[in-house]
Amino acid sequence: MSSNYRNFRNNVPWLIVLLEAAFIILFYFFVLNSDPSLSRVSYPDFQDVNHMVIFGFGFSLTFLKRYGFSSTGFNLLIIALGVQYSVLIESVLVFFHQSENRDSLKRAVVSMTAVVISTGAVLGKTNPVQLILMTVVEALAFRISGWINTTFLQVVPDNISMMHVHLFGAYFGLAVSSRFSEPSPRSEKNASTPKSDLLSMLGTLFLWVFWPSFNSVLALDSKSRAIYNTYFALAVSAVTAFVLSVLTTKDGKFRMSHIRSAVLAGGVAVGYTAESIEYPWIAMILGLLASGITILGSYRLQRCLNATFKIHDSSGVHVTFGLPGLLGAVAHVILFVI
Amino acid sequence: MSSNYRNFRNNVPWLIVLLEAAFIILFYFFVLNSDPSLSRVSYPDFQDVNHMVIFGFGFSLTFLKRYGFSSTGFNLLIIALGVQYSVLIESVLVFFHQSENRDSLKRAVVSMTAVVISTGAVLGKTNPVQLILMTVVEALAFRISGWINTTFLQVVPDNISMMHVHLFGAYFGLAVSSRFSEPSPRSEKNASTPKSDLLSMLGTLFLWVFWPSFNSVLALDSKSRAIYNTYFALAVSAVTAFVLSVLTTKDGKFRMSHIRSAVLAGGVAVGYTAESIEYPWIAMILGLLASGITILGSYRLQRCLNATFKIHDSSGVHVTFGLPGLLGAVAHVILFVI
Amino acid sequence: MSSNYRNFRNNVPWLIVLLEAAFIILFYFFVLNSDPSLSRVSYPDFQDVNHMVIFGFGFSLTFLKRYGFSSTGFNLLIIALGVQYSVLIESVLVFFHQSENRDSLKRAVVSMTAVVISTGAVLGKTNPVQLILMTVVEALAFRISGWINTTFLQVVPDNISMMHVHLFGAYFGLAVSSRFSEPSPRSEKNASTPKSDLLSMLGTLFLWVFWPSFNSVLALDSKSRAIYNTYFALAVSAVTAFVLSVLTTKDGKFRMSHIRSAVLAGGVAVGYTAESIEYPWIAMILGLLASGITILGSYRLQRCLNATFKIHDSSGVHVTFGLPGLLGAVAHVILFVI
Repeated sequence: MSSNYRNFRNNVPWLIVLLEAAFIILFYFFVLNSDPSLSRVSYPDFQDVNHMVIFGFGFSLTFLKRYGFSSTGFNLLIIALGVQYSVLIESVLVFFHQSENRDSLKRAVVSMTAVVISTGAVLGKTNPVQLILMTVVEALAFRISGWINTTFLQVVPDNISMMHVHLFGAYFGLAVSSRFSEPSPRSEKNASTPKSDLLSMLGTLFLWVFWPSFNSVLALDSKSRAIYNTYFALAVSAVTAFVLSVLTTKDGKFRMSHIRSAVLAGGVAVGYTAESIEYPWIAMILGLLASGITILGSYRLQRCLNATFKIHDSSGVHVTFGLPGLLGAVAHVILFVI
Repeated sequence: MSSNYRNFRNNVPWLIVLLEAAFIILFYFFVLNSDPSLSRVSYPDFQDVNHMVIFGFGFSLTFLKRYGFSSTGFNLLIIALGVQYSVLIESVLVFFHQSENRDSLKRAVVSMTAVVISTGAVLGKTNPVQLILMTVVEALAFRISGWINTTFLQVVPDNISMMHVHLFGAYFGLAVSSRFSEPSPRSEKNASTPKSDLLSMLGTLFLWVFWPSFNSVLALDSKSRAIYNTYFALAVSAVTAFVLSVLTTKDGKFRMSHIRSAVLAGGVAVGYTAESIEYPWIAMILGLLASGITILGSYRLQRCLNATFKIHDSSGVHVTFGLPGLLGAVAHVILFVI
Repeated sequence: MSSNYRNFRNNVPWLIVLLEAAFIILFYFFVLNSDPSLSRVSYPDFQDVNHMVIFGFGFSLTFLKRYGFSSTGFNLLIIALGVQYSVLIESVLVFFHQSENRDSLKRAVVSMTAVVISTGAVLGKTNPVQLILMTVVEALAFRISGWINTTFLQVVPDNISMMHVHLFGAYFGLAVSSRFSEPSPRSEKNASTPKSDLLSMLGTLFLWVFWPSFNSVLALDSKSRAIYNTYFALAVSAVTAFVLSVLTTKDGKFRMSHIRSAVLAGGVAVGYTAESIEYPWIAMILGLLASGITILGSYRLQRCLNATFKIHDSSGVHVTFGLPGLLGAVAHVILFVI
């Protein structure tokens, strides 16, 4: 612990200073103008997503006792670093392709969601240096995967390819998590208290309220439809979360951890399709299925995952973001075919 | 307690599942397109009101020790169910009248305010089944009362008729509350702690900040005037709340329960008239009067109400929303005549 | 304490009632129409700044144990009084100059930031009567200083002159603070607890998230550029704050008080220049310098200031808002010359 700690003390600041210096120098060469799309009309969307990422993910990561507000702080650090980095990647791509630089700040904040979701899977197992390296690698990998999707596969427009952010974040996080040994279940690092659970619930409420903004921030034409569908998918999955939480627990009480993971499932599931779903009842059914999969998943699959693959998923990102994301991808393909 | 509890366990989930299934089926028939009014320009209003309803009312109901975050959770459940239900009622009305479906999501969220205010009156006396039944009955009754107002009385345009939401919510809640026996004053269910009082104050701050958005969300032409008047009414009633709280308490300290109920009084009072008040000083005088009525009401009337009518009003919705709403209605009539 | 307390009880309410009555009467004569600029498009900006002032400053002032939520309450009282007062000053100026009344509510909320920042310097040393008197004097002085800047010096347009709000607030607060004796370091009034530090961090997060809205709320043409530059300045200063906090503390841990004061430094420093900086890397370098000055300042200068000038600065407004504001002013002059 002690040597590990000295290591932290010695490396983290210099790693960050190096990154930050590189960012400023590269900004000097590549980021030549500001993002003209942050006008008065479209700024509130960006502000909502910014608010959601800082408060929503910041607080929903506080459920471990040992990582109270320090995870809120790390969340801020990772996002502040990562947004600069993502804008830079975007600008370098634009520079070499001579294409226009649209919505770079919005896209950067959306990309960071992937990193923050992955952080949820490895929380309590990594040190800050590893977290920052993960940020650097993941943001690049996410951008490349989106670029492959739109350039080579040509199945999805660019703005929708950004919405596989949950899927990417969840499975990248699990892959990283599989490299670490599981902390002992009795260790303090893995414990949560009622108070930390409550703060985490507060974070989830922020995510719930701002999710329609998130799903529609990159929408081009059917922004209004994206908001409408997301709202109903979220409403149905919130209702389903309460019902299933009562039915699956032995004492018939609401369990906060169930609700925390399932209320958002609908919003995640309609991420790809929010713009293209024509009738709200389709979004509602997706919300119902997503929430059901999440709670049944956390009831059965989690234990199985831990036992079989030796993967420890600190905050249940697999059931919260992975499974609904998969459902959404399947729904996207079905709707595309129809 | 035990049989009551098993009852809860057995009934709640199936009641909710039944409602949710009915909603999805009826959405399939009646809600044929999404709300086109949630465009980029008008979405921030909706988002503010959504934020306010979830956080503001969610936290301002946490003042009872026993109902800490679980009332925030119930608030979310009731709103998620109720918004779907209200959109459905609206769409059925539109379907049979062949009129256009405007602002349905905004109107649904505004309607739910009535239900959430009523919840404040019965908090600690009802079980979840009763709360959900109340939601179903009240949202329908509110829509019918608005329809009667605009169709038969023809005194007010549709968007202003929605603003009697506080009045309706407060007195519906009191009527429901009168059916229940008052919990013993010493029971744990009726107790508040400093910490729960603080959370409740946090909820009130959310309501205060977003009230101008709430009062202007359905405004058609004079949105800017509605915001301006509401802001000044709120500012004056906040100032008055602090003054009267010091003057009416024996030790001359600010009392949080006074401030909690009176800071919003001005915003409630100008609900109907925010669009039509020409000079801000009129809104300021309404704010002053509303705040005064609220604090004097909670000082004198509350005890009298409890004693005479045997109505127990858990969170003081009568003085917080009922009396300022009445003042606002009187002001509306006077301004209409002038 | 006791006589002081009776004094408080006797004076505060009547002072406030007098002010409020004067405001309503003067509104009757001078404020003849509502602010037409609060339309649907520009309202979200105002709402962000309103949210930031109430929640951000309200909670960032809660770091002293004895002034938990009561400072949030006082913050609300001061803002509710001060905004009316500032709108009034603005309207009287407009009335006598026959100019148009533009953005009066937005400008009033921005002006109140100066008062709230000053409050941070005198927290724990003043009683409520003194705070309210300070509000009245400072809001007037701030308006006059802005008027002198634009009318006589003619160096800056009106909307940019409003942005020296941090500088004015910090040094006005220090000047007032120098009139009071420093509380004994061991007294309860000067103590903070981990819990109050966390609430204060929450307030800082609100400030961080909404700072781009604050810096762009009065921008006329280059709103998008102001947001973009502010976001990057904030991101770099957040990153720098974490790095320098680790490097300057002996145990190599993040110190919350460092982070609290330095994450905002970049946003303060680009206050004047956010609209005119052409390339984001300039904003990033300003963010880096501002954050460095703040942490080194709180490390060295604070003690020196206390010892030499006998000025006690409760919440470190000198390093949080004063020094970055000075840096911003210097940068403004340099950029103006170039």
